Amino acid sequence: MSDARETSLESGLGLNPRWDAHGLITAVATDVASGEVLMVAHMNADALAATLATGEAHYWSRSRQELWHKGATSGSTQRVIEMRIDCDQDAVWMKVEPAGPACHTGERSCFYRVVGANGLVRDSGA
Amino acid sequence: MSDARETSLESGLGLNPRWDAHGLITAVATDVASGEVLMVAHMNADALAATLATGEAHYWSRSRQELWHKGATSGSTQRVIEMRIDCDQDAVWMKVEPAGPACHTGERSCFYRVVGANGLVRDSGA
Repeated sequence: MSDARETSLESGLGLNPRWDAHGLITAVATDVASGEVLMVAHMNADALAATLATGEAHYWSRSRQELWHKGATSGSTQRVIEMRIDCDQDAVWMKVEPAGPACHTGERSCFYRVVGANGLVRDSGA
Repeated sequence: MSDARETSLESGLGLNPRWDAHGLITAVATDVASGEVLMVAHMNADALAATLATGEAHYWSRSRQELWHKGATSGSTQRVIEMRIDCDQDAVWMKVEPAGPACHTGERSCFYRVVGANGLVRDSGA
């Protein structure tokens, strides 16, 4: 990356996502009330645009290769209270109000296991 | 992914990271005190092992293509208080005690800009 492009990305006030080779950025959703990280997923340009237009989190499903309006079928939508972007614009952080569990397993957060010295420990309360 | 492998990944208590094509998983670091998302980066197997062994966050620098002990040169290390892994084991969430700014720009968090209707708004206080 050129220095000029890097400076613009880091200090500029233009939204210029740095899409990866698959056209994606990383998206982290936290619960605006608890601060808990709910999930980590990805967005393409369509998902980002749909999220900004509707105020509800949209992702790109890498497994299904389709736009994914979170909660469209389950009801567990995520209302976006605030979206932030990081220094090099390849990740966004959304503070959301979740209407239900973020995880397809039914857990509130996808991060329901703690990494311990001897493997994982299940702990749903973050 | 086979159903058996998926079940083991999701409900098992073995640490079995699902490395991507580049041998990486996503790593999110939050401030254990404020809950603020500090940064999103990546880990390879060496970085994960070093993090678990030392209790300080290690990442894989994709730009430099080397193991990156966060804060080794800047002093801004991150002490890992808790590490969690997500349902499909391709992302970890670390709650850390940062010894200094997470961002190379000097900001406490890399997410110092809010995405607004008309571009980005600088706001260091998350």
